[in-house]
Amino acid sequence: MDHGMTGAGGATAEFILSLNAGSSSLKFSLYEAGDEPREIAVGQVESLGPNARFKARIGLEQVEDDLGSANHHVALRAILEKCETVLQGRPPACIGHRIAHGGVDYEAPQLLTPEVMEKLALLEPLAPLHQPHNLAAVRASIEAFPDALQIGCFDTAFHRNHPWVNDTFGLPLKYYDRGVRRYGFHGLSYDYITGTLARIDPELASGRVVIAHLGNGASMCGVLNGRSIASTMGFSALDGLPMGTRCGQLDPGVVLYLMDQEGLSASELTKLLYNESGLKGLSGATNDMRALEASQQLEAEMAIEYYTFRARRELGALAASLHGIDGVVFCGGIGENSAAIRARICNGMDWMGITLDARANTDNEMSIGIGRTKVLVIPTDEERIIARAASRALNERAMAKD
Amino acid sequence: MDHGMTGAGGATAEFILSLNAGSSSLKFSLYEAGDEPREIAVGQVESLGPNARFKARIGLEQVEDDLGSANHHVALRAILEKCETVLQGRPPACIGHRIAHGGVDYEAPQLLTPEVMEKLALLEPLAPLHQPHNLAAVRASIEAFPDALQIGCFDTAFHRNHPWVNDTFGLPLKYYDRGVRRYGFHGLSYDYITGTLARIDPELASGRVVIAHLGNGASMCGVLNGRSIASTMGFSALDGLPMGTRCGQLDPGVVLYLMDQEGLSASELTKLLYNESGLKGLSGATNDMRALEASQQLEAEMAIEYYTFRARRELGALAASLHGIDGVVFCGGIGENSAAIRARICNGMDWMGITLDARANTDNEMSIGIGRTKVLVIPTDEERIIARAASRALNERAMAKD
Repeated sequence: MDHGMTGAGGATAEFILSLNAGSSSLKFSLYEAGDEPREIAVGQVESLGPNARFKARIGLEQVEDDLGSANHHVALRAILEKCETVLQGRPPACIGHRIAHGGVDYEAPQLLTPEVMEKLALLEPLAPLHQPHNLAAVRASIEAFPDALQIGCFDTAFHRNHPWVNDTFGLPLKYYDRGVRRYGFHGLSYDYITGTLARIDPELASGRVVIAHLGNGASMCGVLNGRSIASTMGFSALDGLPMGTRCGQLDPGVVLYLMDQEGLSASELTKLLYNESGLKGLSGATNDMRALEASQQLEAEMAIEYYTFRARRELGALAASLHGIDGVVFCGGIGENSAAIRARICNGMDWMGITLDARANTDNEMSIGIGRTKVLVIPTDEERIIARAASRALNERAMAKD
Repeated sequence: MDHGMTGAGGATAEFILSLNAGSSSLKFSLYEAGDEPREIAVGQVESLGPNARFKARIGLEQVEDDLGSANHHVALRAILEKCETVLQGRPPACIGHRIAHGGVDYEAPQLLTPEVMEKLALLEPLAPLHQPHNLAAVRASIEAFPDALQIGCFDTAFHRNHPWVNDTFGLPLKYYDRGVRRYGFHGLSYDYITGTLARIDPELASGRVVIAHLGNGASMCGVLNGRSIASTMGFSALDGLPMGTRCGQLDPGVVLYLMDQEGLSASELTKLLYNESGLKGLSGATNDMRALEASQQLEAEMAIEYYTFRARRELGALAASLHGIDGVVFCGGIGENSAAIRARICNGMDWMGITLDARANTDNEMSIGIGRTKVLVIPTDEERIIARAASRALNERAMAKD
């Protein structure tokens, strides 16, 4: 496929832009293409709407600016403009998009052709809080960079080969056929972690590993020989671990009760379960784990206790799914930075061979376990997974031209 | 409290009737009171409605009869009448009722005074498919036996001392305060099993045990030193393990999706999740595990695979909740009778010390494990727990009179 690009390959590296679009922000990273892409800028436009704000590190420089009113189109133009100091007239040759949902088919990045975009739009009901924003950013990007390759990287892709028991719910089979499945998310993060693990500890990478991605969203993934076989997240981004504002595992009878007895509508329930629950709901204060850890309020402590207990419970469940466990990896904002949360999750797990070296844990070292089950802390990098896919796409296009 | 009974104590034992009322059946057991009550009849009125049917063993005799149209009142009169061959003019001195929900307060059997009945009626929204039928049977029983003691035994009572993390969901705290909690059910069964375990294996009974109650309904309970600390069932009878017709664990996002995208109402969702899911939904055929095991259909095998996998997953989760595991007990219709299901649940659990003796398992022996974690099969007897509570209530009344 020839998009009329010039200058692919050659002495001057092409640029790659990776985009991660949410309802209220557009995060970006800019790379020079290559086997291992080189990051040259990273930042975001936040508070999309009437008072949007640009914040980034471009080269070595910190840049901040008020943008006024901005949607995805305006935000993208601002990113391009601000990065002109490093782009110097050469627009990105490939834009890689983080897309929440790839449905049942896509287990690898896809070129975002009109046909693929049509398919992805059909998945919007499956991820109503993420997919529409992801696709809006793709459309803005196609308009802004009509000559660039546009590829989609899916958070569901890494989980596409789960055994059937981890892909279904206990519902009539017709719902499975209609797409009510345990998709699993955070796949770009798990992909990055398993890739890194294969490099730094090939023996562990070939074994049974549970990866805990504890960020603003949170899930855990059971990985066998580098492949996902189970995830705590299921059909939506609600299930599994409690999160900043999302409930995590919930008895479906509670949803029925809240409809029937408290008269909540579907949209009120959506707001409650996605935006007002989890750490924020339990603490009655905030979804910010650092603030909760610093708080003296009993409710803050209760929220942390629930969060860490549920993670420990799921660690046991995933180990059972893997028929045992050889290692645990913590990643994501909380997983990488909070020694206290890691310690509380691992507390009482010696029976599974999980015992922390308190000093190594406090120092955020990479290897923090002293039991027979390894415990690692690995900073994740979802943008890099997108940038690598983009580099491969550029390479393939260059080879197709030769 | 003197209900005007005559003949309490003395040479002739009093009779105890234990009742378990569902929407379409009224199960009963008749006992002679005593430290260990002696069962003298057991049976049920099934298909309550226009074509009800009586089926029981009374003494050594099998009795069956068509009752025509019967509600709980008529069914109760029929039970009394058919049991007259053993009662011989002496009506039961205590009626013990199995009641699904005891709310947050009742952690022991209660005398069913008007005040208690009022409180229990307020809990109907929490167990809409069970509580109203339970209470209807109590009212019929008070009418039929105005002079008898009436006591309620609650399926939630055994779980009332869960740590907070196993009592709450990740929702705003106000919902916890309003009663949206992880109550847990099958408490009478777990009470019986822990009592039996204390007698046959005191050392294990003082340790960390997971009890799997696998019947028509199904749940698992984590028990520490004889006390429940966690259950797979939560707020409703839907959560946790998949069951005959109930879904078990379900992403709350699926419920929102079925409302939003498939247009299902609350009552349609209730019917789907309670009556058309689980083994029946997955197999597309039946909720009868024996029929599924005998079937050659791929869907039957898939339903069994899902059922056993989810039980294995929860076994790991509960072991993590207990900080390790010393024993597993199987009970309930499926747990007591299906060696194949037990074998499939324990498959690949050697890492937790769970290894079955294939012959002992096939022979339904009491002790079937050969690993460091004991594995037992103990037939449960919920009616006996009710009869014991009834005997104690009669004793207390007799002592109060002395």
